[in-house]
Amino acid sequence: MNQRLQSATLTINGERLWASLMDMARIGATPKGGVRRIALTQEDKAGRDKFVAWCKAAGLSIRIDRMGNIFARRAGTAAQAAPVMSGSHLDTQPSGGRFDGCYGVMAALEVCRSLDDYGIRTRRPIEVAVWTNEEGSRFTPVMEGSGVFVGAFTLEHARAQTDADGVRMGDALDAIGYSGDAPMGHPVAAYFEAHIEQGPVLENAGMTIGVVSGGLGQRWFNLTVTGMEAHAGPTPMHLRRDALQGATHIMQAVDALGRSGADTRATVGYVKVEPNSRNVIPGRVTFSVDLRAGDDAELARLTAGMREAAERVCRERRLELAIEQTVYYPPTPFAAECREAVRKAAERLGYPHMELVSGAGHDAIYLASVCPAGMIFVPCKDGISHNEIEDAKASDLAAGCNVLLHAMLERAEVA
Amino acid sequence: MNQRLQSATLTINGERLWASLMDMARIGATPKGGVRRIALTQEDKAGRDKFVAWCKAAGLSIRIDRMGNIFARRAGTAAQAAPVMSGSHLDTQPSGGRFDGCYGVMAALEVCRSLDDYGIRTRRPIEVAVWTNEEGSRFTPVMEGSGVFVGAFTLEHARAQTDADGVRMGDALDAIGYSGDAPMGHPVAAYFEAHIEQGPVLENAGMTIGVVSGGLGQRWFNLTVTGMEAHAGPTPMHLRRDALQGATHIMQAVDALGRSGADTRATVGYVKVEPNSRNVIPGRVTFSVDLRAGDDAELARLTAGMREAAERVCRERRLELAIEQTVYYPPTPFAAECREAVRKAAERLGYPHMELVSGAGHDAIYLASVCPAGMIFVPCKDGISHNEIEDAKASDLAAGCNVLLHAMLERAEVA
Repeated sequence: MNQRLQSATLTINGERLWASLMDMARIGATPKGGVRRIALTQEDKAGRDKFVAWCKAAGLSIRIDRMGNIFARRAGTAAQAAPVMSGSHLDTQPSGGRFDGCYGVMAALEVCRSLDDYGIRTRRPIEVAVWTNEEGSRFTPVMEGSGVFVGAFTLEHARAQTDADGVRMGDALDAIGYSGDAPMGHPVAAYFEAHIEQGPVLENAGMTIGVVSGGLGQRWFNLTVTGMEAHAGPTPMHLRRDALQGATHIMQAVDALGRSGADTRATVGYVKVEPNSRNVIPGRVTFSVDLRAGDDAELARLTAGMREAAERVCRERRLELAIEQTVYYPPTPFAAECREAVRKAAERLGYPHMELVSGAGHDAIYLASVCPAGMIFVPCKDGISHNEIEDAKASDLAAGCNVLLHAMLERAEVA
Repeated sequence: MNQRLQSATLTINGERLWASLMDMARIGATPKGGVRRIALTQEDKAGRDKFVAWCKAAGLSIRIDRMGNIFARRAGTAAQAAPVMSGSHLDTQPSGGRFDGCYGVMAALEVCRSLDDYGIRTRRPIEVAVWTNEEGSRFTPVMEGSGVFVGAFTLEHARAQTDADGVRMGDALDAIGYSGDAPMGHPVAAYFEAHIEQGPVLENAGMTIGVVSGGLGQRWFNLTVTGMEAHAGPTPMHLRRDALQGATHIMQAVDALGRSGADTRATVGYVKVEPNSRNVIPGRVTFSVDLRAGDDAELARLTAGMREAAERVCRERRLELAIEQTVYYPPTPFAAECREAVRKAAERLGYPHMELVSGAGHDAIYLASVCPAGMIFVPCKDGISHNEIEDAKASDLAAGCNVLLHAMLERAEVA
């Protein structure tokens, strides 16, 4: 057996993986080919039920905690050893795709099924995790299940969150029968998560596997620029205090900051102009700034650069400025041993691979605060995600799952 | 009498003018000190009724046409001669001020009252005009009454326009009893309109009287810039097609074009960002461009400059561009004899005065297409109008009315 494991020929069943993905995609399927399986709805329940049934059929034992996180365990020979875990989420955006989240769960399940096919036992248990409400579409915050699992916020806080109709998250969880009794949080030896990239980097580079180095830190801000609302016709240019014109200069400075570092990103995604009338000079513009960087020093440099530019523009143009920080996520480098396990697996299997950073949030980023963690990215078509047209190649999905198999086996140790 | 007329001592009664303005401002008065007297509402009817009563008390004869335009005539010695007309409008913006429109009507009425005080008869009749629905807040288009009077569009078209509740303009006019039977349009020897400036030029220059040279031509456009919507986190800067960043460069080019000529103006007042989400790179931005200039050659130069800049930005940034023109008003220079009558009156009366252009639309601009026309601007506080805090000094309003008296007398000829 060890000999087969050393070879690149040990592979998962790509057809079965694809069939499971397509089967799961029927639950909440939209006419445009996407999926609407919002957290803790009847569709979410149906997806969970199907997953649990598949796990039981594969001989996995199920535990569910008070956040509705599901853990399906394949026993190890060292019964008391902490498991090597892999998973993701089954909930989707309101107009979501077939792969975001679901792929990570199905890939982890496929690893267990393939190990059964090969008759391989591991020293450490292997666990497949389904994290509750990763998308945050119905209940905030995002990555709610993994957030409570690692202690980022409390169970009580999470279960008290309400949706747009005033339904409490805890009640919605009770209603679908997924408030379990497993203790919250347990030791994990290593965590891996396979995911579509949700960006264009791998596709543009012609790579099959992304070895994720970690998650970018994020700082989000609201900027408000106030000038003087006035009629467009009677007000000469030199007497204007145009909040929008000032804002455009700050927005361009933000974009330039995004281009100033190796893995830095800076985005203005939201703009509100007041009064937003065709023949009125804007008196006030509110806009968002989303800054991301690989380490806190870079994030601080971007933040300082944004402040400096905004203050300069407003001083020069006699505009008032208010800056409010709304979000901070610290940068999260993944553990060297997990990155290396992924990289070595991709190399052994002969897949074109590159290291890249995750600009988006993932459950793995929370898990990294309590155990060594790593991620495997595979390309998605045109880099598009959170969209019904989200697409990925079956061969790339199988490749990512093969890398997951080998990385997990390295950390779980063949018995 | 002629001797008195030649002197600068012939003046209107400023206190009576102010009292009339304040009296009219009670109709539709808002808690913040403004006026809400929307076209063809009960407030508009009450304002019209009060005006008509004042006119009758002053011995003026009333005619009302099918558009609800009111003409109050002070007879001339040459009964068949075309009148010298002055007026403006009594309707306001939803949160309007006390002077926009109302001042022009009250000033023309005050001219008649003052002529009575002095016992002056004129060769030509003098008419005070109230134009229906100048503001366009409830029924479009703006300057509806004067537009039909000069034949810019038809009576049937205007009366068929509906408000937000589906009420037809003609029915609303019938309901307040102001669909008259006077023939639509009649010869006018000269038209003058006194108005607050609605801009900051006179105040900034320390001038009391603005001799209006004409109305700026206007071209309005909708520009749509389309890029690629994508997640802010996973999408590196160099792979983005950010519609908003492209739009900011076009917006700045628009502003620069506004600063490129003597009396040119260029404004972006309306912006719509899609999907307008904090962590999504904007896929589409739609925004308005309002270009104004004193002659068509300048307006064409601004338009070409905007197109060139927008096309260059979108070509360089791989963005799609659509440009749609939505409005064209031709530039309207006022007749030399009316401008000169206003200028000479201001000079004779010793008021600090300057020539300036009207950037906004006014009934006088429509009238200029059928007769010699001119306007008199007086300063308004901080250049603010279309706002409940709109304010003007009684002394400036009286000065403007004095200029109106002298300019009208010059054209109407003392009998």
